[in-house]
Amino acid sequence: MSETEIDPAHAEAIVETNLDEDDRLKPEFVTAVLTHVEAGDDEGTRALVAPLHPADIADLFELVPGEMRRPLAAAIADMLDGDVLSEMNEWVREELIDALAPHEVAEIATQLETDDAVAIIEELEEDEQRAVLRAMEPDDRAAIEEALSYPEESAGRLMQRDLIAVPEHWTVGDVLDYLRSNEDLTTDFWEIFVVDGRHHPVGTCNLSWILRTPRAIAVADVMKREQTLIPVDMDQEEVALRFQKYALISAAVVDQSGRLVGMITVDDIVHIIQEEAGEDILRLSGAGDDDINQPVVDSYKARVRWLLANLLTALVASTIIGIFEGTIAKMVALATLMPIVAGVGGNAGTQTMAVTVRAIATNQLTQSNTVRAIVREIRIALLNGLTVAAVIGCGVAIVFANPALGAVIAAAMLTNIVIAGLSGVLVPVALDRMDVDPAVSSSIFVTMTTDSMGFLAFLGLATAAGLAG
Amino acid sequence: MSETEIDPAHAEAIVETNLDEDDRLKPEFVTAVLTHVEAGDDEGTRALVAPLHPADIADLFELVPGEMRRPLAAAIADMLDGDVLSEMNEWVREELIDALAPHEVAEIATQLETDDAVAIIEELEEDEQRAVLRAMEPDDRAAIEEALSYPEESAGRLMQRDLIAVPEHWTVGDVLDYLRSNEDLTTDFWEIFVVDGRHHPVGTCNLSWILRTPRAIAVADVMKREQTLIPVDMDQEEVALRFQKYALISAAVVDQSGRLVGMITVDDIVHIIQEEAGEDILRLSGAGDDDINQPVVDSYKARVRWLLANLLTALVASTIIGIFEGTIAKMVALATLMPIVAGVGGNAGTQTMAVTVRAIATNQLTQSNTVRAIVREIRIALLNGLTVAAVIGCGVAIVFANPALGAVIAAAMLTNIVIAGLSGVLVPVALDRMDVDPAVSSSIFVTMTTDSMGFLAFLGLATAAGLAG
Repeated sequence: MSETEIDPAHAEAIVETNLDEDDRLKPEFVTAVLTHVEAGDDEGTRALVAPLHPADIADLFELVPGEMRRPLAAAIADMLDGDVLSEMNEWVREELIDALAPHEVAEIATQLETDDAVAIIEELEEDEQRAVLRAMEPDDRAAIEEALSYPEESAGRLMQRDLIAVPEHWTVGDVLDYLRSNEDLTTDFWEIFVVDGRHHPVGTCNLSWILRTPRAIAVADVMKREQTLIPVDMDQEEVALRFQKYALISAAVVDQSGRLVGMITVDDIVHIIQEEAGEDILRLSGAGDDDINQPVVDSYKARVRWLLANLLTALVASTIIGIFEGTIAKMVALATLMPIVAGVGGNAGTQTMAVTVRAIATNQLTQSNTVRAIVREIRIALLNGLTVAAVIGCGVAIVFANPALGAVIAAAMLTNIVIAGLSGVLVPVALDRMDVDPAVSSSIFVTMTTDSMGFLAFLGLATAAGLAG
Repeated sequence: MSETEIDPAHAEAIVETNLDEDDRLKPEFVTAVLTHVEAGDDEGTRALVAPLHPADIADLFELVPGEMRRPLAAAIADMLDGDVLSEMNEWVREELIDALAPHEVAEIATQLETDDAVAIIEELEEDEQRAVLRAMEPDDRAAIEEALSYPEESAGRLMQRDLIAVPEHWTVGDVLDYLRSNEDLTTDFWEIFVVDGRHHPVGTCNLSWILRTPRAIAVADVMKREQTLIPVDMDQEEVALRFQKYALISAAVVDQSGRLVGMITVDDIVHIIQEEAGEDILRLSGAGDDDINQPVVDSYKARVRWLLANLLTALVASTIIGIFEGTIAKMVALATLMPIVAGVGGNAGTQTMAVTVRAIATNQLTQSNTVRAIVREIRIALLNGLTVAAVIGCGVAIVFANPALGAVIAAAMLTNIVIAGLSGVLVPVALDRMDVDPAVSSSIFVTMTTDSMGFLAFLGLATAAGLAG
C-alpha cells in the first residue's frame, strides 16, 4: 500500500495549500499547473498533481480550459487512472476518452469495480464499445457485457459483482477463515450476505457483528433476516430512495428468480441522490440535464426547444390580450399594469409547483394525502392573494386616483394567485399520475395558466367594470 | 434480537402488500389503519402497523390527516420509538412531541444515537429543552448538551460520540479481543480509528481489512494514513460535499486541537445531500424551506415576502412600460406583443440561472472557470436568441403584415435573450462572491432584469423605429 509511505502531516499540509475552505482547488494552484503544462515541463506538472486525491485530479481537468485537457492528460498519463476518470464529469471524460486508443480504455476499465467500469464504457459509441470490450480479458469482458445487458440507469448497471456471500450453515469462525485464506476476494465491503442452497439471500451481517461474535456462533444467529433486496431492473432513482429511506450501507441485488447477483454500496448512491435531487431544478427551469461542461451545441438544442414551447404559450397569452385591444386603446394604463398581475401570479404558481415537485420526488406526496395538499395550497393562496391584492389595490387606487381601477387589479390579483396555487399543485400531481416526470413539463402548463388567466382576469374585469368606458 | 423471529417469507409478503412499486405505503393500507384507529380498535391498529419498518411508520404519520396523528400515536405508543421519530418529517414530529411529557421525550431520546437525539431535542422550545434534559441520565444529558453547544447545522450536531478508537501500537488481535470483550461498545460502525497518545487520529481501518489480516499484524500496518478529517464546526453542507467527493463511509470529527471527538457516518449524510440539493429548487422559486407538512401560516409568511418583493420588481417593469404609453396608445398591438419578449427572456434567464446555481452548489464552478462559463452562456444565448428571434420575427411580420414590426420584435427578442443569459450567470456568481446564497436571491434580480429589459428593448425600438408614428 503506497499510501502508508506518505507522511500524514505532509499530506495534510499539501491538501491545505491546494484547496480552499470549500474543498475546491484554488485558482492559484490551477494556474500553476497550467503554467507547467504550457512550458512542457512534465516533471513539474507531475510533482504538483501527484499529492492530489483522485477526486481532485478529476476536478482539475474540469477547471482547466478545454484545449489544455489533452496536454495535461499527456503530462500525467499514469495518474489518469480509473479512479480519476470515474470521478470526472461525464462530458470532460468523454472528451479525454475519445483521445485514447481502445486498449488504453480497456486497461483503465480493468482496474475498476464493475459499476465504475460500466459508467465509463456505457457512454462510448457502439463501435468504440465493441473495440474496448475486445481488448479486455474474457472475465472482465463478460462482467461488463452482462451489466450492459441491463437497462440504462438500472440497478444492474450500478451493482458490483465482487461481494462476499456465505452459506447459512457456516459459523463466524468459518467466515473469518474464508476471508483470511482467500487472497483474491474483494477488500472493500461493509456487509456480508448469507445465502441458501439456491443462492437466494436469507440475511445480512454487518462486519461489526462478525467482529464482536465468538467463532463458534452460526452466522444465521447473528445475521439480520429483514433485508432490503434490490431487483436488478429497478430504476436508480428508486434504488436511491430505498437506500435513503432504510439508511442502507449496502444492499443485495437479486435477479427475477431471487438469486443474489450483485451488491450496491452507498458510495455509488450518494452521487445519484445528489444528481436526481439536483436534476429537478434544471428540468423545472427547462434546462434539461445541462451542466457547465456540456458542449454549447447540446445545451442549445435542449434549451431552445423549451424556449420555443414557451413562445407558443406566450402567444396564447398574447391572443387573450388581443381580445381586449379595444379596452386598452381607451385606457392605456391597463397595458402598464397588466404584467404585474401575470408576473406575481406566475411566481406564486412557481412556488407551489416547486414544493409539489419536491414532495412527489421524495415520495412524501401520495394518493393518501393529495386532497390535503391541495386544500393546504388553496389556503396559502388565499392568504397570499389577499395580502398582495390589498397592497397593489390600495397602491393603484391612490397613485391613479382611481378606486375602481384599484378594486379591479386587487380582484384580478387575488383570482390569479388562487388559480396559480391550484395549477401549481394540480398540474404536477396530474402529470405524475400519467407517469410523466412532473419536473420536466409542469412549468410550461403552469406559466401558461398564470399568464393567460392574469391578463384575462385583469382586462376582463376592467372591461366588465366599464373602466375604459 | 427480535428480528430473527420473523419468518422472512412472511415479512416480505407484508412488505409487498403494504407498499406500492415506489416503496410508498398504499392508500388502501393507510385507510385500513385509519378505520381501526377511528373505531378505537388499538389491537387491530397495532397488528397492522407492527410489521412495518420504522421509516414506514414515520411515513404513515405523515400520510394520515393532522387530527388523526395523536390518536394513532396513542394506539401504537410503544412502537413510536426513537427510530420512528428520527425518520419523521420535522413538522409532523414537532406536532407529536408537543403532546408528550418531558420524561417521555427523554426516554425516547435516550434510545437513540447522539446525533438523532440532538435532531429531536434541538427543535424544542428552550424551556422544553431544559425540562427534557433534566429528565435524562447525567451521561446522556452531558453528551446532548455538548452537541447543542456546537452551532446548528454543524458537524458537532451531526456526529455521534460512540465510536471505536484504538492506540496505534495495538495488533489486529488486540483489536479483536477488545471488541469481543467489551459488551457496551457501539455495534454499528464501519471503520475503526487509530489514535496517538494525544487522541489525535493517525489512521483509519476498514473493518474488512481487520477481518482479512492475521492477528499478529499491527493495526498501524493495515490502516490508511490518508484520512479526511472533519472539523467539529464545519457546516453540514460542506461535510456532505466532502463525503460525496471522497466517497466516505464514515469520517473522524476533530476539535480545534486535533483531538478525535466523534464520528459521522454516511447514512446521516445521505439525508443532508438530498435536503441540500432539493433546497435549491425551493429557494430559487421563492418557497423558502417549505414542505407539504409545514403549517399553512409559516408557509404563508415565507412565501408572501417573496411575492411582495416580486411585486416591487414588477412595478419597475410597469414604470418602464409607462414611459411608452404614448407609443402604445398609437399602436395597441405593441401591448399585445410585449409580454412575449419579456416572458421568453425570463425563461432563458431561468435556464441559465438554474445551471449556474447547481454548478456553484456542487463546487463545479470556481474562480478558475468563471470566465469560461460566462463565455459559454453568451454563446448559447446567441444561438437561442437568433433562433427564437427568427421565428417570432417572421411570424409577426406575416400575421401583422408589418415587416418593420417583425424586425423590431426580433431585435428586441435577441437582445433580451442575450441579456437574460448574461444576468443568469453573472447574478448568481456575484452573489456567491459576496457570500450570499445564490439560490435564495438570484431569481428576483434576474426576473427584474429580463422583464424590464424586455419591455424597454421592444417598446424602445418600436418608438425609435417610428412604428407608431
